[in-house]
Amino acid sequence: MKCDLSKTEEIEYMFQEIKEQIGGVDVCVNNAGISFFQDCKTGTLPDTKAMYDLNVFAAIAVSQLTIQSIQERNMDNGHIINISSICGTTIHEDVPCHMYSPTKYALGAFTEGLRHELRKEKTKIRTTIINPGFVDTPLARMKGIAEAFDPGNCLQPDDVASAVTYVLGAPPNVNVRHICLHAIHGIL
Amino acid sequence: MKCDLSKTEEIEYMFQEIKEQIGGVDVCVNNAGISFFQDCKTGTLPDTKAMYDLNVFAAIAVSQLTIQSIQERNMDNGHIINISSICGTTIHEDVPCHMYSPTKYALGAFTEGLRHELRKEKTKIRTTIINPGFVDTPLARMKGIAEAFDPGNCLQPDDVASAVTYVLGAPPNVNVRHICLHAIHGIL
Amino acid sequence: MKCDLSKTEEIEYMFQEIKEQIGGVDVCVNNAGISFFQDCKTGTLPDTKAMYDLNVFAAIAVSQLTIQSIQERNMDNGHIINISSICGTTIHEDVPCHMYSPTKYALGAFTEGLRHELRKEKTKIRTTIINPGFVDTPLARMKGIAEAFDPGNCLQPDDVASAVTYVLGAPPNVNVRHICLHAIHGIL
Amino acid sequence: MKCDLSKTEEIEYMFQEIKEQIGGVDVCVNNAGISFFQDCKTGTLPDTKAMYDLNVFAAIAVSQLTIQSIQERNMDNGHIINISSICGTTIHEDVPCHMYSPTKYALGAFTEGLRHELRKEKTKIRTTIINPGFVDTPLARMKGIAEAFDPGNCLQPDDVASAVTYVLGAPPNVNVRHICLHAIHGIL
Repeated sequence: MKCDLSKTEEIEYMFQEIKEQIGGVDVCVNNAGISFFQDCKTGTLPDTKAMYDLNVFAAIAVSQLTIQSIQERNMDNGHIINISSICGTTIHEDVPCHMYSPTKYALGAFTEGLRHELRKEKTKIRTTIINPGFVDTPLARMKGIAEAFDPGNCLQPDDVASAVTYVLGAPPNVNVRHICLHAIHGIL
Repeated sequence: MKCDLSKTEEIEYMFQEIKEQIGGVDVCVNNAGISFFQDCKTGTLPDTKAMYDLNVFAAIAVSQLTIQSIQERNMDNGHIINISSICGTTIHEDVPCHMYSPTKYALGAFTEGLRHELRKEKTKIRTTIINPGFVDTPLARMKGIAEAFDPGNCLQPDDVASAVTYVLGAPPNVNVRHICLHAIHGIL
Repeated sequence: MKCDLSKTEEIEYMFQEIKEQIGGVDVCVNNAGISFFQDCKTGTLPDTKAMYDLNVFAAIAVSQLTIQSIQERNMDNGHIINISSICGTTIHEDVPCHMYSPTKYALGAFTEGLRHELRKEKTKIRTTIINPGFVDTPLARMKGIAEAFDPGNCLQPDDVASAVTYVLGAPPNVNVRHICLHAIHGIL
Repeated sequence: MKCDLSKTEEIEYMFQEIKEQIGGVDVCVNNAGISFFQDCKTGTLPDTKAMYDLNVFAAIAVSQLTIQSIQERNMDNGHIINISSICGTTIHEDVPCHMYSPTKYALGAFTEGLRHELRKEKTKIRTTIINPGFVDTPLARMKGIAEAFDPGNCLQPDDVASAVTYVLGAPPNVNVRHICLHAIHGIL
């Protein structure tokens, strides 16, 4: 199912379609994200807002709609996994993603607030934030930071998938709150 | 000078006016901010975006325009002071500002990225993030959380002003990067 | 092999024995730890020092000896996994381990410093810090915090073991730097 | 009054002397500290323990004895100011104090636990942690990292004193929890 996550209406339509076709969403992995290589000093507002639209606002909408879908079916469990970035844990002088980092700090803080609320309600809906280092994706290759693609310097998409598999496979009462992983010689 | 900080054009116009009238901006204290008492689970997107508009995007625009104003006059010093909140340092189960916190985490990360960039340029422009606890303001009183206004539970606006005065008064080569202050029996 | 980890001589003897019997240590999981329920205001120095002896100094010695063992055999890989605690990530008003927490903050900072050094050397020795919430162990049961043993409130030892298994099973160039896990309704 | 802070008996004797001579201690600034330039990989245990003795255990003893002195006189206010280091906030690859950093992380965590306890008791005793960057002291000069002494790269002792003055001068119900300051071009 295709969905432009920067458009709230499309997200809502997608959840409606899923509801009609298979009943609802139990587990949601927010993996979409966009990064422009922008400094805080010079980054333009349109590019900045485009990052917040996808990295923050879409993740909020999808998280909220997943929880609604879980609870309107009177289920007590489910899982929200938000894929952040290592740029959401540390701000490094030499990494050209200073304007991107704050979107991931915001996503981490949102996920933590959500966790507190779900815990206070005594639901068994789990929340996880995963902070991977640089991943070798077609999009990243298009931007062409060649030396970054040495295997010691970047993750493969499968490495993030393995983290998700581990998190989902934990017993229902175990919440893996946070994982940070990266290539062994990655920059941060 | 009045300015609706949620409108980029008004911010740009304000800086233009300042330039014409007094030459430019050397020191900027981003104190504007808005907080809706919203949960991450139920907060609406319009309210959420209104918080990001003021707490994040306006602070970015004002910070960038201040630096431009400093550097186009070939000055080497100046100061960006971003007023965050104690909600930008900790996410507490019982504090009803879970959707507000991420805006302040984003502001803190932006300020830190900016600091790295200015340091790398070897400028002497300083950056500071201040995280005050709950402050007794007319706006806060309108929202009416009565018990919060016991002097042991909240700061006065002057307490934040004193922090700003201390930061600005440090010798030019001393950067007070971060201050966190709160009422002694405040909630966090 | 038994070893009183609070005694450096016994640690060194253990590594000597391992060297003679099986050649050396490639992977080390520092799981030993001790927690006295002590406040910062009233905790006694002997109890405090006993916690640092095991939680910090023994972990340092074992980490250093493992790296020596790896490098004296001209190996380039290996893994140091330090088991911290959720008390090493957050300091909570209501959790009676305020004097224990700082030992785990120190362990986390040590592990991060070590990671930087090994990365700078371009070795492939990996380092991981795991922060589990409260675990249901015989020792914990002896201390008798009954309500804590509801399955929603505590982890089982197997949950920590699964985290270790996941970390060790990642491809050699993937470093899982950090995992935080806890029972879904655990206190922090 | 001279006191070897690495010896608990001398600390206790000092507080006894103060009690007899002037009644007690209301405000305590733990400024003593020692740093050996040691890696986590190779740092020796005796040097490491010497750092913990002064940076952690002495600070604990002095903090506890100050609170005792305040409360045995039925006073309700006072102030514990623990001087940490910028190495207690970030672990930087290129800063040669990896084994020192964990002592300052521990001190920060101790101070935060103490704050929670004093707040829970509803006392008005304040606690502050100050994280200064590199300071130009005679001891530092003896170790001779010459380039570090450019005024843009290091603080003067007065800069830390000014932070202490600001913290102590805040109104009694205002707790300045944390200050981080550093030379504008300092390394971290």
